Amino acid sequence: MSFELTILGSSAALPTSKRFPTAHLLKAGERFFLIDCGEGTQIRLRQYGINPSRIHHILISHLHGDHVFGLFGLLSSLGMMGRKVPLHLYGPHSLEEFMNSYSRFFGPLPFDLEFKSHAENSDFIFESDKLTIKAIPLKHRIPAFGYLFREKKKPLNIRKEQIEAFGLGMADIVKVKRGEDFVTDSGTVIPNSQLTLPPFHQRSYAYLSDTLFDPQLAEIVKGVDLLFHEATFSDRDKKLAAQTQHSTAAEAATLAKMAGVKKLLIGHFSSRYKEPLLLENEAKEVFENTTGVNDGDIYSIPPERLSGE
Amino acid sequence: MSFELTILGSSAALPTSKRFPTAHLLKAGERFFLIDCGEGTQIRLRQYGINPSRIHHILISHLHGDHVFGLFGLLSSLGMMGRKVPLHLYGPHSLEEFMNSYSRFFGPLPFDLEFKSHAENSDFIFESDKLTIKAIPLKHRIPAFGYLFREKKKPLNIRKEQIEAFGLGMADIVKVKRGEDFVTDSGTVIPNSQLTLPPFHQRSYAYLSDTLFDPQLAEIVKGVDLLFHEATFSDRDKKLAAQTQHSTAAEAATLAKMAGVKKLLIGHFSSRYKEPLLLENEAKEVFENTTGVNDGDIYSIPPERLSGE
Repeated sequence: MSFELTILGSSAALPTSKRFPTAHLLKAGERFFLIDCGEGTQIRLRQYGINPSRIHHILISHLHGDHVFGLFGLLSSLGMMGRKVPLHLYGPHSLEEFMNSYSRFFGPLPFDLEFKSHAENSDFIFESDKLTIKAIPLKHRIPAFGYLFREKKKPLNIRKEQIEAFGLGMADIVKVKRGEDFVTDSGTVIPNSQLTLPPFHQRSYAYLSDTLFDPQLAEIVKGVDLLFHEATFSDRDKKLAAQTQHSTAAEAATLAKMAGVKKLLIGHFSSRYKEPLLLENEAKEVFENTTGVNDGDIYSIPPERLSGE
Repeated sequence: MSFELTILGSSAALPTSKRFPTAHLLKAGERFFLIDCGEGTQIRLRQYGINPSRIHHILISHLHGDHVFGLFGLLSSLGMMGRKVPLHLYGPHSLEEFMNSYSRFFGPLPFDLEFKSHAENSDFIFESDKLTIKAIPLKHRIPAFGYLFREKKKPLNIRKEQIEAFGLGMADIVKVKRGEDFVTDSGTVIPNSQLTLPPFHQRSYAYLSDTLFDPQLAEIVKGVDLLFHEATFSDRDKKLAAQTQHSTAAEAATLAKMAGVKKLLIGHFSSRYKEPLLLENEAKEVFENTTGVNDGDIYSIPPERLSGE
């Protein structure tokens, strides 16, 4: 099962010739989740060979143009491509009104939008048998939310040779897959770890954009495999970061360090920096395993069995 | 003085990896006119090295998404880039309401939009000392307008050597520049053509998109230097063209032939054609001087003195 992030746009508010405004695509198993939808998202999808019709879930962190101006174009194209199945849209309350203005000017879409607000009172804004998504309140000029994607625990895989060796029946197998030990007719206890393969690690991706540095977020994204944290500004423009309620590269890295994440991605670079390597270097001084993202980058987390058996 | 068209987007409703939705930029002298603003227009401007702040006039042919979804992003970016001077926006009435929905969700722009509707009762929707723009009603599913850009007649250039030869005074020069002949003290009439350089040809560009084939348009765009006519469909999809109120390549070429234009550009190609050369070839069978446009193409019309002296 794949768990793979594609960067569709890595600029901040002003796009550049090489960086489109913010959009990320997470492929978890066979599901595609589009996170933010800056102008040109549908064009990037085509350029990177991804069929937009495969997307059934779009999450909009907040209603600033550089995170949402691609939505009308993408949805309109999906309609023209013959979409009939509903599309799930997650975002602030105002996103629903914004979509109403689409219908007002461009007519109704030929498919339903199932809207879910960030503020809805539940642990997860999305939950399937394989994945959960949690909305994380951020500190920005308008209501904004980040997201934590985490795989669910998978059922244990039984070692096939042990079924025969211990003569396990169907009922026994179900129990062992749930994690129980097996007791033989003679009363010997065979520990579960001897009967099953080590469980898979639950992969995770957290997306935090746009936000002020907020140390409270560290607890929420603790230990994730991949953390994307916006890094709009260099340390030398710290004041500007505070004024506009954005983060510096060093702040993003500080959060990654506090949270003990495995890898940090930074992006949402202000177009004032001709060479975003500067921002990557600032972050690396605080947290070594940092990468400054570019449009088209793919970050894949392979499935891995936990070795702690 | 330059008269130069840059193709920013050449696709029809669905963009492809290489073709952005419709946007053209005409540079007439030092003025930039943006004609339609499909998604990604601001990105193309950056990719082609054109500073968006130099644009003071945006014309929107009609309110279909592929002609207007880039407007919010472009205007928002102009605001962030510090624009204070007004921007002139031409389009259907509903465009003004559409822009109101921008302010509602994203706040007021820091510069004024001077809105002018296509329907306003005047010969030209724009007129300067150098150029006129006429709005041309098209036949499409919703109200749509094309545009005819035409240079104004320039004052005649006087042959400097003749000023001395005939002893022209200031008052005489003014008259000669207006086109009058000169009468010497002895009563000899010196014809104007002997005193002045041949006048400049008035360059012209017509943009017709989106529209059904409409033979009445031929009279309006008669003899233009450059005609852009949409060619969404191939002849084999003629029915589809009629249903959706678009044109085929051959129809675009027929109009060019009827109007006796100098050069025809076709574009707004449906993404169903993997090889738009097909459309170019269909058009060329009717009107030889046809080019199928690509994003990034530049068509420049050099200034030329009329040779008919």
